Amino acid sequence: MSALLADLYEFTMLQSYLEQNMTKTAVFEFFVRKLPPNRNFLVAAGLEEVLDFLENMTFLEEELDYLSGIFPAFVIDYLQGFRFDGEVHAMAEGTIFFQNEPILRITAPLPQAQLVESRIMNLLHFETLIASKAARSVLTAPDRRLVDFGLRRAHGAEAGLLAARASYLAGFSGTATVLAGMKFGIPIFGTMAHSFVEAHEDEMDAFRNFARSHPGSTLLLDTFDTELAAEKVVALAREGWKIGGVRLDSGDLAMHAGKVRSILDAGGLRDTVIFASGNLDEYAVNRLLDCPIDGFGIGTALVTSEDHPMLDCAYKLQEYDGRPCRKRSEGKATWPGTKQVFRLRDSRGKLEKDVISLECDDLEGERLVGPVMHEGKRLHPRTPIARLRERTMQNYASLPESLRKIDAENAHPVEISQLIHDLSKRADRREIHPLS
Amino acid sequence: MSALLADLYEFTMLQSYLEQNMTKTAVFEFFVRKLPPNRNFLVAAGLEEVLDFLENMTFLEEELDYLSGIFPAFVIDYLQGFRFDGEVHAMAEGTIFFQNEPILRITAPLPQAQLVESRIMNLLHFETLIASKAARSVLTAPDRRLVDFGLRRAHGAEAGLLAARASYLAGFSGTATVLAGMKFGIPIFGTMAHSFVEAHEDEMDAFRNFARSHPGSTLLLDTFDTELAAEKVVALAREGWKIGGVRLDSGDLAMHAGKVRSILDAGGLRDTVIFASGNLDEYAVNRLLDCPIDGFGIGTALVTSEDHPMLDCAYKLQEYDGRPCRKRSEGKATWPGTKQVFRLRDSRGKLEKDVISLECDDLEGERLVGPVMHEGKRLHPRTPIARLRERTMQNYASLPESLRKIDAENAHPVEISQLIHDLSKRADRREIHPLS
Repeated sequence: MSALLADLYEFTMLQSYLEQNMTKTAVFEFFVRKLPPNRNFLVAAGLEEVLDFLENMTFLEEELDYLSGIFPAFVIDYLQGFRFDGEVHAMAEGTIFFQNEPILRITAPLPQAQLVESRIMNLLHFETLIASKAARSVLTAPDRRLVDFGLRRAHGAEAGLLAARASYLAGFSGTATVLAGMKFGIPIFGTMAHSFVEAHEDEMDAFRNFARSHPGSTLLLDTFDTELAAEKVVALAREGWKIGGVRLDSGDLAMHAGKVRSILDAGGLRDTVIFASGNLDEYAVNRLLDCPIDGFGIGTALVTSEDHPMLDCAYKLQEYDGRPCRKRSEGKATWPGTKQVFRLRDSRGKLEKDVISLECDDLEGERLVGPVMHEGKRLHPRTPIARLRERTMQNYASLPESLRKIDAENAHPVEISQLIHDLSKRADRREIHPLS
Repeated sequence: MSALLADLYEFTMLQSYLEQNMTKTAVFEFFVRKLPPNRNFLVAAGLEEVLDFLENMTFLEEELDYLSGIFPAFVIDYLQGFRFDGEVHAMAEGTIFFQNEPILRITAPLPQAQLVESRIMNLLHFETLIASKAARSVLTAPDRRLVDFGLRRAHGAEAGLLAARASYLAGFSGTATVLAGMKFGIPIFGTMAHSFVEAHEDEMDAFRNFARSHPGSTLLLDTFDTELAAEKVVALAREGWKIGGVRLDSGDLAMHAGKVRSILDAGGLRDTVIFASGNLDEYAVNRLLDCPIDGFGIGTALVTSEDHPMLDCAYKLQEYDGRPCRKRSEGKATWPGTKQVFRLRDSRGKLEKDVISLECDDLEGERLVGPVMHEGKRLHPRTPIARLRERTMQNYASLPESLRKIDAENAHPVEISQLIHDLSKRADRREIHPLS
């Protein structure tokens, strides 16, 4: 992605930083200020894409031409040779986290650390948003096949791709998006569309033709009349065609699933699975858990995080040249300093409490933020996504019951350490300057 | 964008269509089933990107390699030479439209028309969603500068870019996203970030350095204390620095705007404008209209269409080989046939009624759907975005008062013609088939 995918002010500030020789080391952290309603935890995601971006960030000639109409030559010169060569610390993808906890820290010369802000936020915000939404369906229906069906109403191409990645990382079985399958190695799934049935003069012909091309595949039942279509599936099986499953996509899914299951069972098709889709989210899936539905296609509500399509996240300067920084804007004040999250668990391994303190603190507990990039180079090769997914599952296992519920809001205790409180006071004393 | 950005079932169906020689002409239409709450109209957007996609759609070797692990050789052969060579009819971008009205029609051999479904929906859905959201701010504050600030919380890179495009098309003044400026020729705007102030030991130094680099630019006031910062701006002006504007980004914006305006005016800075940002949407802007605020930066709520991040849209087969098609799925039934929208206006040019009928009908009124692509080639060169924006403004002028309100839901009359009702009955009679 082009390095011009950034807010104009990143470049405007860059110019001033260069003019003032303000190129000393800055520390920025990305965190979520508070959890949205109906989210008891968040799932960190998007780190791999951030590291790709930082490793490859350069400016093309045409981009520099465009900027040279706006900025003086010394800015263009700086960008011409631009490489990100800073340090990155982060929580592993799939880690459960809470408000105010930094999931990514950039330590780099101020102009560099500033310039990467927009895209880092754009990536971490979205993947974390979707992984955190997907987690709720996974916890609700851990034993069902869940497939991302959202590409068509995802917000553009990248949203479709990254939603497939984030939802798989969070425990989905796969996606319908072919390119996500190729790009990320995610399992892909598909059935048929209503148009396929409609393009035939006869629904039975449509089913037969599809079964001929794709033995064992899934037939869509609701184009005209769901139960009548289920009868046709039974008839088709009697002709000798192999039918793997059927899909319901409209109407009262619980009612149709019951009737269709009976029809299939009566016809001897006990192994033919029922897959449901159509405006589903974790609440709908939860209501359908007692129905004979083996899997769910979840689309729009997942990939737009429909109930809360944004996280109140920030990428904030915490230190410049060794001096702690914070803003005190009303309702948006931040905690200064280079931070670490210390996680405490109970005897059964369940999350008990998190403490946010300074990196230099030596509190007990697991340290969640670790080094992932040194001098602009990854410290580890790209982790296979199946491995990331396993790690997410291990994280779910550490959730206490109260945080697993999708229909009750419960807050995990997150403490701000005394060290940080003290540092804030010192930072405040320094930053208040009377009019000179 | 890769042609693999598609749901798997598009390819699965393609295989069967090819096997069955079902390659006759199909007509698909894209429309929105119903308007979301708080939307009295929608603004068509995304057509240029759809035409780009259709003109350039091909499969790369590596993509075909991936597919060859899933599909038989004749499918790969077909895709190897794939070019979209169909017809496209559409409403012009910027056209106001309503439920069930097709804004795009694809007429092409069935396999082609099917294969383009996912990406067409992905593009039209998102840009239309954002243009329709942006329109509400523009109608609320037609005399203020409105700037898209949403990149960081847009759903990925393309969402950031297309949201900038769609909101400009809908009447915004510009965007903060540099790449959108370069790519689409949209004006770009920017101020400064809190980090710039924090990186300095003294806020006054930060302001002075920024004013030195960028004479006439906008200073951010709320890092520590908004009114104290406004006093510093006055002091700075007395030193001879030129300050174009100030930005408020937190707290009670109405209160701060009043106080800051007084401070600036008392200091002789009557021409220094006040720009506001921070979790704004059209409702917040509406409440702030009486305040001395000259412009608004609108971010997350705009680019995610936060109150309703999706449209209930569909891309449906309406005709195959001259035969009208429809599905009758519960709650998702569609109207068959190749359609046209006839728009009737009153004597003052305001929208009075729309009638959806068949293309072959000769009703009175403006026909909104026209040819834009023939045999896979654009009929017209790309329209400059400033021209599209003017057209949107002309469309707003045709809105009756009842539809302009952002806080009242009013429905524009949209009639389904007798011809379509008759055709539906005929299609239904044909499509009901008893079990054979």
